[in-house]
Amino acid sequence: MSYSIDLNCDMGESFGPYQIGQDEKMFPYISSANIACGFHGGDFRVMDETVRLAVKHHVTIGAHPSFPDLQGFGRREMSMTPKEVYQMILYQVGALQAFVRAHGTTLHHVKPHGALYNLAAKKGEVAEAIAEAVYQLDSNLILYGLANSELIAAAKRKGLRVGQEAFADRTYQDDGSLTPRNINNALIEKREVAITQVIGMIKNKRVTSVTGKQIHLDVDTICLHGDGEHAVNFARHIKEAFEQENIKLNPVNG
Amino acid sequence: MSYSIDLNCDMGESFGPYQIGQDEKMFPYISSANIACGFHGGDFRVMDETVRLAVKHHVTIGAHPSFPDLQGFGRREMSMTPKEVYQMILYQVGALQAFVRAHGTTLHHVKPHGALYNLAAKKGEVAEAIAEAVYQLDSNLILYGLANSELIAAAKRKGLRVGQEAFADRTYQDDGSLTPRNINNALIEKREVAITQVIGMIKNKRVTSVTGKQIHLDVDTICLHGDGEHAVNFARHIKEAFEQENIKLNPVNG
Amino acid sequence: MSYSIDLNCDMGESFGPYQIGQDEKMFPYISSANIACGFHGGDFRVMDETVRLAVKHHVTIGAHPSFPDLQGFGRREMSMTPKEVYQMILYQVGALQAFVRAHGTTLHHVKPHGALYNLAAKKGEVAEAIAEAVYQLDSNLILYGLANSELIAAAKRKGLRVGQEAFADRTYQDDGSLTPRNINNALIEKREVAITQVIGMIKNKRVTSVTGKQIHLDVDTICLHGDGEHAVNFARHIKEAFEQENIKLNPVNG
Amino acid sequence: MSYSIDLNCDMGESFGPYQIGQDEKMFPYISSANIACGFHGGDFRVMDETVRLAVKHHVTIGAHPSFPDLQGFGRREMSMTPKEVYQMILYQVGALQAFVRAHGTTLHHVKPHGALYNLAAKKGEVAEAIAEAVYQLDSNLILYGLANSELIAAAKRKGLRVGQEAFADRTYQDDGSLTPRNINNALIEKREVAITQVIGMIKNKRVTSVTGKQIHLDVDTICLHGDGEHAVNFARHIKEAFEQENIKLNPVNG
Repeated sequence: MSYSIDLNCDMGESFGPYQIGQDEKMFPYISSANIACGFHGGDFRVMDETVRLAVKHHVTIGAHPSFPDLQGFGRREMSMTPKEVYQMILYQVGALQAFVRAHGTTLHHVKPHGALYNLAAKKGEVAEAIAEAVYQLDSNLILYGLANSELIAAAKRKGLRVGQEAFADRTYQDDGSLTPRNINNALIEKREVAITQVIGMIKNKRVTSVTGKQIHLDVDTICLHGDGEHAVNFARHIKEAFEQENIKLNPVNG
Repeated sequence: MSYSIDLNCDMGESFGPYQIGQDEKMFPYISSANIACGFHGGDFRVMDETVRLAVKHHVTIGAHPSFPDLQGFGRREMSMTPKEVYQMILYQVGALQAFVRAHGTTLHHVKPHGALYNLAAKKGEVAEAIAEAVYQLDSNLILYGLANSELIAAAKRKGLRVGQEAFADRTYQDDGSLTPRNINNALIEKREVAITQVIGMIKNKRVTSVTGKQIHLDVDTICLHGDGEHAVNFARHIKEAFEQENIKLNPVNG
Repeated sequence: MSYSIDLNCDMGESFGPYQIGQDEKMFPYISSANIACGFHGGDFRVMDETVRLAVKHHVTIGAHPSFPDLQGFGRREMSMTPKEVYQMILYQVGALQAFVRAHGTTLHHVKPHGALYNLAAKKGEVAEAIAEAVYQLDSNLILYGLANSELIAAAKRKGLRVGQEAFADRTYQDDGSLTPRNINNALIEKREVAITQVIGMIKNKRVTSVTGKQIHLDVDTICLHGDGEHAVNFARHIKEAFEQENIKLNPVNG
Repeated sequence: MSYSIDLNCDMGESFGPYQIGQDEKMFPYISSANIACGFHGGDFRVMDETVRLAVKHHVTIGAHPSFPDLQGFGRREMSMTPKEVYQMILYQVGALQAFVRAHGTTLHHVKPHGALYNLAAKKGEVAEAIAEAVYQLDSNLILYGLANSELIAAAKRKGLRVGQEAFADRTYQDDGSLTPRNINNALIEKREVAITQVIGMIKNKRVTSVTGKQIHLDVDTICLHGDGEHAVNFARHIKEAFEQENIKLNPVNG
C-alpha cells in the first residue's frame, strides 16, 4: 500500500539585507512552499527570488499573508475588523500572484502566517474573512489551515478546497488542538518521536494526545520549519523515513 | 467634428486615518483613475474603497505604483537597480489587481507616480524595467507616461499600448518637455489659459511653448490634480468647456 | 475664589504630506501639548515644527508615545511584553527630547496614546513598564494618564508626579471609569453639558455618572480633541466659560 | 614609543527577528561602537540590548543615524533637504540617547551610516546639517566622518571635536579619497596588507595610494566591519598586531 502527503515550509521570509531561513537547502525536501508577502517578512526582491527558486525545484507555491508587523515577524495579534482582514489578504496574495504569473506558473494555495494563523483557527469571523478573500482571488485556490480549525470549516462552507495542516514537532491535546507553546511538553524535542508521530498521522489518521488518548486527525499537509540549525537535517531524515514507509510527497490535491 | 480625450486623476492616496484629495468629488469628472498601491499612499482599506468608487462611477482603473516612501509621498528619488524597479512594479500592480478582480472588473493601465514617473521619463533603463513589468503582468495593459518620454518609447518597443500624458496646468519648453517646477513660469495659474491650452492640445495636437513656438504633441490623456481647493472647480470648468467644444471623455483606447 | 486647571491637546499627529488636526488654531487655547513621536503619527519634520509652535505659544510640551502602527493610528492593541513597552517608550520620548532641547526648552510630561493609553489604564504591568521608562528618562517628568487608573497608581508608586486626566466629552460610570465608546451614551454631544461637566470636575472634584450618582474625581488636566470641525469652536467656548468661572489655565504642577 | 588609536564598529543593526552582525563576538576587540537607531537597522529592543552590551564591555557608545530605509539598509541615497537631514539626525540620536541615559552612561559620538555617510563626505550642505544637529544635541559630542571629508570640515567649523576615520580594508587614491567600490582594487583582500596599512596610518600618518604615492592622513579611528565570516578573525589579528606594535586602543579623545 502507498500513501501520499504534502510537506510544506514557510519560505521567502528574508527582508532587505536580512536573511532568515535556509530556503535553498530546504526546497529539495518539500512539495509546497508558503511564500511571505512583505508584511511579516519578504520584500519584492525576496518574493521574486523565492518564486524563482520554487519553480526551479518544482515546488508548488502558496501565499503566506500576515498581519503588517515586520518587527514582530507577524507574531503579535493586532485588532482588526474582519473587513480589514479580508482587504489585507487581497493585497498580499495579489502581490504574490504577480510574481507567480511573471514566472509562468499559478498560485496553488494560501496559508495565513503566525498570529493571523492562530486567530483564524479559533475565531469564526476572521476565518470567514480570509476564506472570502481567497475565494474572490481565485476560487480554485486551496486554503491551508490548522486541522479541525475554524479556518478549515469556513473554507469548506465557502466551497474552497482545504489543506488540513499538522505539525511534526508539536504535541496534541485530547480535543485535537495543539498544546500551547507556554506549556512544558508542547514541543517534541526528539527527532524519532516527531517522525513516528508524522507517520502515524499519515498512515492511521491518528495522533496520540499528551494524555495518551488516540485522536482522529485528517491531515493533508505537514509543516516543516525552515529555520534553526536542525531544520535541514530533520527534513532529510523525514524524507528517508517516508521512502521506507512508501509515503510519497505530493502537494495538496496535486 | 467631434474629439475624444481621457481625463485621468490620481486617486486613493489617503492612508490609515489620513485623508488626501477629494476622491468622491472628483470621480464624476474623469474617465480614468490612477489608484495608489500602498507605497506612497493608499493602504489595503483605501485601495478597496477607491476601486469600489471607481466602479460605481464607471471610471476605468489604473495602478499608480511608486517608490516605497510614504513620508516623502513618493516624491524623493531613490537609487534602485532596474531589476528592483521591475520587482517593485510587479508587487504593487499585483496587489491592486486583486482588488480590481474582487470588484468584478479588470485593470486598464499603469501610471508610475512622482519621482518614479519623472525618472522613467528620462532614464531608458528605468523605463524599460517598468515596461517589462507591465508586460509580464498583462500585455493588454496600457502604460501611461509623459508624452514623448523614454517611458513611452520603452512601452512601444515592448509592444504595449501607451497613454501619452499632458498636463493642463504646466507650461512647455521648445523641445516639448515640461518647464521644470523651479522655473518661474512652470505653472499656469489662470484657469482660462489652462483650459485653452488643453483644448488646443486635443483639437490641434499642438501646444505653444514658453517662447511662443508651436510644438506638436500627441496627447492621449490629460492629468487633473485632485487635491487643492480649486481641483473640483477646475474639473467642472474643463468639463463644461469640453461640452462646448464637442470633446468627449473616453479612457485611452476606450 | 480661583481655580486652576491644565488643558491638554494631542498635537503633531500629521505625517509626511498628510495633515491631521489644526494645531496652529488649537495652540492658543491650551496649556500643554502631547506631541506625537513618529509611531502613530508625526515624523521628524512634524515633530520639529510642532515643538517650535508650542514654544512660540508658551505651551508646555509632553511626549505622546504609541504602539508602532501608523496605519491604525495607534488605536489597535498589540501584544508586547512589558519590557518591549518600556523600550518603546524610551525610544519615542528620547526622540522628542532631542527636538525639545534643540528648541531650548525641556520636556514636561509623557502621555501614552490610543490603545497604549487604554491598556496602561487597566493593566498593571504595562503601567509599570511605562512608569519605569519615564522615570529612567527623567525623574522630574510628569506622567499623564486616566484619572484613577493603573497608570496613575504605577506612577505614584515609582515616585513620579502625575497628571490625572479627564475628558470633557465623555460620560462616566458609577465606578469612575469612562463609559466604553461602543455604548450609546458614551459621548456628550451637547457643548453646554460638556462644559458644565468640566467645570464641576474642577470646582467640586466631582462628576455625575450615567446613573446619576456623584463620583469623586481628582482631575489635574482636561483633554481637548484637536480634530473635527467643532474642536476649535469648543476650545473657544471652554476658554470663555473658564474666564467667567475664574478658572485659570496652568500646566500640571506648573 | 607608544601609539593610541580608536577601533570602531557598526553595532546593533539587527531588527526584530532578523540578525545581522555578531555583536557579542566583536565587542571585545573594539573601543567604540556605532549603534544603529532604527532607520536602517536596529529597533528599540535591539538598541536597548546593544547599549547594555557596550556598557558591559566598557566600549564607548556612538549613534549611527541613517536615511529611513530598512529595506535598503540605508545604502540608497534619498533626496532630502538639509533641514530634513538635520531633523532626521535629531530624531535618531535623541532616541539612542534615551537608552544610553537609562543605562547610566553618556553618548560619546555620532557617525552617519551608509549613503548618508558618503553624501556627507562630499556635500557641504548635508555635512553642515549633520554638524548642526549634533551640536544642538550636545556640543560635547564627537562627530566621526571620513578623514579629510566635508563632514570633518563642517564639524570643525561648528566647533565640534572630530573623529577622522579610515578603513583597514579599503585602498586610497592619490587625492586621499577612497577608491570607489566599483573599481577593481577598491578592497584589500589580504589580511596582512590591511593590517600593515592600518599600522602605517597610525604610526606614520601615511597611506600608500594605489599608484604608489605616499599620502598624509590624520586618522583618529579605524572602522572594523562586524559582519562576514572573517570579521571576528580579522579583529583578533589586528589586536595582536597592535600589541606587538605598542598601539593602545582608546576611544577618540578618550
